[in-house]
Amino acid sequence: MAVRRFTLGFDYGTNSVRALVVDIATGEEVGTGVYSYEAGVDGVITDSLDPTLARQDPKDYIEGLQKAGKKAIAAATENVKGFNKDSIIGIGVDTTGSTPIPVDEEGVPLGLSQKFTNNPNAMAWLWKDHTSFEEAEAITDKARDMRPHFLAKCGGAYSSEWFWSKIWHCLRVDPEVFNAAYTWVELADFIPGLLTGTLAPHVLKRSICAAGHKGMFSADWSGYPDGEYLTALEPRLGLIRRALPNVSYTAGQKAGGLTPKWAERLGLKPGIAVSIGAFDAHMGAVGAGVKEGTLVKIIGTSTCDIAVAPKATGLPDVPGVCGIVDGSVLPGYIGLEAGQSAVGDIFNWFVKHSVPGSCYEEAKAKGQDIHEFLTSKAKKLLPGESGLMALDWNNGNRTVLVDVRLSGLLVGQTLQTTPWEVYRALIEGTAFGAKVIIDRLEEYGVHIEEVVNCGGIAEKNAMLMQIYADVTNRTMKISRSAQTPALGAAMFAATAAGPDMGGYNRVQEAQVAMGGLKDIEFAPIPANVEAYRKLYIIYKQLHDAFGTTTYAQSLYNIMKDLLDLRDSVREQKRTQGQFI
Amino acid sequence: MAVRRFTLGFDYGTNSVRALVVDIATGEEVGTGVYSYEAGVDGVITDSLDPTLARQDPKDYIEGLQKAGKKAIAAATENVKGFNKDSIIGIGVDTTGSTPIPVDEEGVPLGLSQKFTNNPNAMAWLWKDHTSFEEAEAITDKARDMRPHFLAKCGGAYSSEWFWSKIWHCLRVDPEVFNAAYTWVELADFIPGLLTGTLAPHVLKRSICAAGHKGMFSADWSGYPDGEYLTALEPRLGLIRRALPNVSYTAGQKAGGLTPKWAERLGLKPGIAVSIGAFDAHMGAVGAGVKEGTLVKIIGTSTCDIAVAPKATGLPDVPGVCGIVDGSVLPGYIGLEAGQSAVGDIFNWFVKHSVPGSCYEEAKAKGQDIHEFLTSKAKKLLPGESGLMALDWNNGNRTVLVDVRLSGLLVGQTLQTTPWEVYRALIEGTAFGAKVIIDRLEEYGVHIEEVVNCGGIAEKNAMLMQIYADVTNRTMKISRSAQTPALGAAMFAATAAGPDMGGYNRVQEAQVAMGGLKDIEFAPIPANVEAYRKLYIIYKQLHDAFGTTTYAQSLYNIMKDLLDLRDSVREQKRTQGQFI
Repeated sequence: MAVRRFTLGFDYGTNSVRALVVDIATGEEVGTGVYSYEAGVDGVITDSLDPTLARQDPKDYIEGLQKAGKKAIAAATENVKGFNKDSIIGIGVDTTGSTPIPVDEEGVPLGLSQKFTNNPNAMAWLWKDHTSFEEAEAITDKARDMRPHFLAKCGGAYSSEWFWSKIWHCLRVDPEVFNAAYTWVELADFIPGLLTGTLAPHVLKRSICAAGHKGMFSADWSGYPDGEYLTALEPRLGLIRRALPNVSYTAGQKAGGLTPKWAERLGLKPGIAVSIGAFDAHMGAVGAGVKEGTLVKIIGTSTCDIAVAPKATGLPDVPGVCGIVDGSVLPGYIGLEAGQSAVGDIFNWFVKHSVPGSCYEEAKAKGQDIHEFLTSKAKKLLPGESGLMALDWNNGNRTVLVDVRLSGLLVGQTLQTTPWEVYRALIEGTAFGAKVIIDRLEEYGVHIEEVVNCGGIAEKNAMLMQIYADVTNRTMKISRSAQTPALGAAMFAATAAGPDMGGYNRVQEAQVAMGGLKDIEFAPIPANVEAYRKLYIIYKQLHDAFGTTTYAQSLYNIMKDLLDLRDSVREQKRTQGQFI
Repeated sequence: MAVRRFTLGFDYGTNSVRALVVDIATGEEVGTGVYSYEAGVDGVITDSLDPTLARQDPKDYIEGLQKAGKKAIAAATENVKGFNKDSIIGIGVDTTGSTPIPVDEEGVPLGLSQKFTNNPNAMAWLWKDHTSFEEAEAITDKARDMRPHFLAKCGGAYSSEWFWSKIWHCLRVDPEVFNAAYTWVELADFIPGLLTGTLAPHVLKRSICAAGHKGMFSADWSGYPDGEYLTALEPRLGLIRRALPNVSYTAGQKAGGLTPKWAERLGLKPGIAVSIGAFDAHMGAVGAGVKEGTLVKIIGTSTCDIAVAPKATGLPDVPGVCGIVDGSVLPGYIGLEAGQSAVGDIFNWFVKHSVPGSCYEEAKAKGQDIHEFLTSKAKKLLPGESGLMALDWNNGNRTVLVDVRLSGLLVGQTLQTTPWEVYRALIEGTAFGAKVIIDRLEEYGVHIEEVVNCGGIAEKNAMLMQIYADVTNRTMKISRSAQTPALGAAMFAATAAGPDMGGYNRVQEAQVAMGGLKDIEFAPIPANVEAYRKLYIIYKQLHDAFGTTTYAQSLYNIMKDLLDLRDSVREQKRTQGQFI
């Protein structure tokens, strides 16, 4: 029997960090460990007076690195006969982002210092922190004037979720923290730096994924935005630029070797390869098998959509697509990142705040969780039958409108409207939002043949997957692994280790060996496709009327059309005796 | 001590009939009796496959007449020393409407016959039955072509809730019932006819209130619509016209004397005056003290707004106001009827279908009902603070859009939106809807100086009344009686009895003697008036965009404006330390 080799993938999520030990020949997941962050609410530091604020304590990241890692290795040791620390040949890391952390001259997070303990501004600024929307607008406006090519790469608008918006906002609201920061580091770069002893800003290798998608970094203009532009925004931002490098790295390249200190903490061999980091969605997409023609949707609290396009086709910039970055997903390909700001979050908000006790009681009596119960009711409805339509913007719109200052909308309520009708309308709303993204990509030459979905919602909710198939008129497939980001990180770890250590030369080889799909898939049902085609016209009218400045028609048809569709579906059910 | 005289008012509501014995000198309510209808769900016969259907069994009306009446008289006998049947000098009746009933040649409802037992089409077609929306459109279209003056009197559109729409729909869906009907009678005419033995169609006196507001009856064109117009709609409708009279009567006029049979059933003196009937809202408005300059709002499951204007002013037709009828409220005045299709119904739908168990538990722990609980939370919010906006069209829009094919809308939801924020937004939505009506009346010369509110919601929910005051910038007053329709019916009974029997010559005299206001009133708060002025601009945009064909602007501002208002209110609370 051949020697088995493994890699260790870390996936830093919004509420916890997960570690995964994977057999690099088969993709078998032999050990996993999870550490839930302790700060704030479920690991997120919030402010009851400012719902846009979301921070994290770097202590949680470091504590979680050790604890989740050790748990995963212990589990692997138990599961695999003859497992020992030498079987692990590399480490990969993915994280949320943009999640920048202010650090001192040695690369140590300010939030760890005595001075800034408990100051949220000195902590990590979590991806979903939206405090910086004014700065995002100013950055967009100035780029439109001075550097329009910056915007072209990030969908036409710079987001409040991203690197420069957050740094600038810190400068405005907490100059003391801003001045104490030598530079700012993305979480995706911080963890590999920590593991390899390369945190010091002048040696830290920054990933193209984080820098390119969130930091306006591009080889087209020698790296990060130039000092002139930043100074025009705010002179002190220009100073920050000086501490930033002009090069960046692709995941799969080596960040360095594991330090003896962290080797001891984790119980691993010192010096093994640690890969350059990337964002969770990007590594998740790789873990799910992203390739030309395959869109990967990572459906969680929010959704991230990742596609790649060959460089040779001369891909134009795609308006409203957040990031178009060379090598950010797979080396040699343009990586495209799109997404929906809230998906699972909308369903969770709904069941918490809008579902009556009677549903919970009935669910309990049937031994279902509330999502299962609502789904069991909602799946009996035909498209259009509820007369409802929702916009999925309760947390703003990331793609294609790139606008956090949007909100939810529900139309079509009557005095008979039920919770499960609304639940289905919310799911359909997210499906229509997903279709807007696919349509936009296709329109600009990124052909999408198949969609591979990852995440618990995709695995658990067959109705949702069928609705997505029917709305987008594409077969929905599901990634075999339940933890594709950590699996992707493990693939990159195997690539960083390289053939000499028994790993891979190219991450695509790791994908073939370690990845795969579930057997189940959801094909579009023609009658539903046709029904949703009509409903999408209504969605698009609402989308354009509330989300753009150019729409200029009455929406008088909306309520009528929804009622007409509802009535025709009900009539159809009545005449066909379809009392499902 | 002078001899006390009383009248008996009957109020036929949607779920029950109430009888009230009132002292005609003081308005003191000395006995009341309620009968809940037994058919269907809470007295309403429905169809699970057609949510627009709503019928009632005439048996309930007759059973309720006797039982509620006897209960009220028994209570009066107990409460008033020396009370006897001779003290009651008259009977008045108000009912829902348009609630037409198909009857045979003797005026007996078809639903009471063996042949049509259990056939909903042979029952009373309850006011809120919306099955006839297609016929309503056709009636409106044909009137626009042939008889535009018909439309001018009913706000520019004939409603699916009204007399002719329902009769025509019956003709289409159930010709057997239609053919068996000699004519159709409004419930408001049926009960006085029953009490006075004048049910036979050739002697039945029809009220101007029902005929004028719902049956297109006007002295301007010799009564009901002409046969030529009706025949153009459908020849068999022309036949119906022949059995209808060319005259009608105002409440306060005498329908006849109480028959010996009904005198015995109720325990009253035969021959006492029975007044011509009218709709609940109209008699309720009289009971609440409607007069020139005073708008009466009857706030229940839906809302009815009643005003009067002097005939001398040459009042123009008011677009979108459902009914403008000479003498329908007070003799000598033009009666104007407007309304909102759902108010309390929206709040009840919301608490049933959209409020989580946690709220019910907290309410229970505090000894509050769910409306009290949500109100206690919602009243701490300032105008604009939730960032939400609702359209109050869950049951269509009666005034000024006259369109049942409209539905609800909620915009501004985030992942932090709470049930009480939505609850308040729904209340505000109905307040904005109320303002649209007042503005329209004023625009056409009907000045509204004060608003008198009736109904349980007005009496119980001070927050709602304050919001109405702030949104409309008018002081909200509340009727002293909790049962103004029945009180109004008792006032008309005293008028029908006339001075010879110890009653009144004019109903205005009865209003002065028997009516009154509660001490509490709600004055507009200037800061809230200003905040709601801004929010109303947003409401009006949504109203016009979704409710009219003429609006043609982007609604891009809506979500932004709501968020800006929210943020400024929160900032204000933060800086002023207003943590209420």
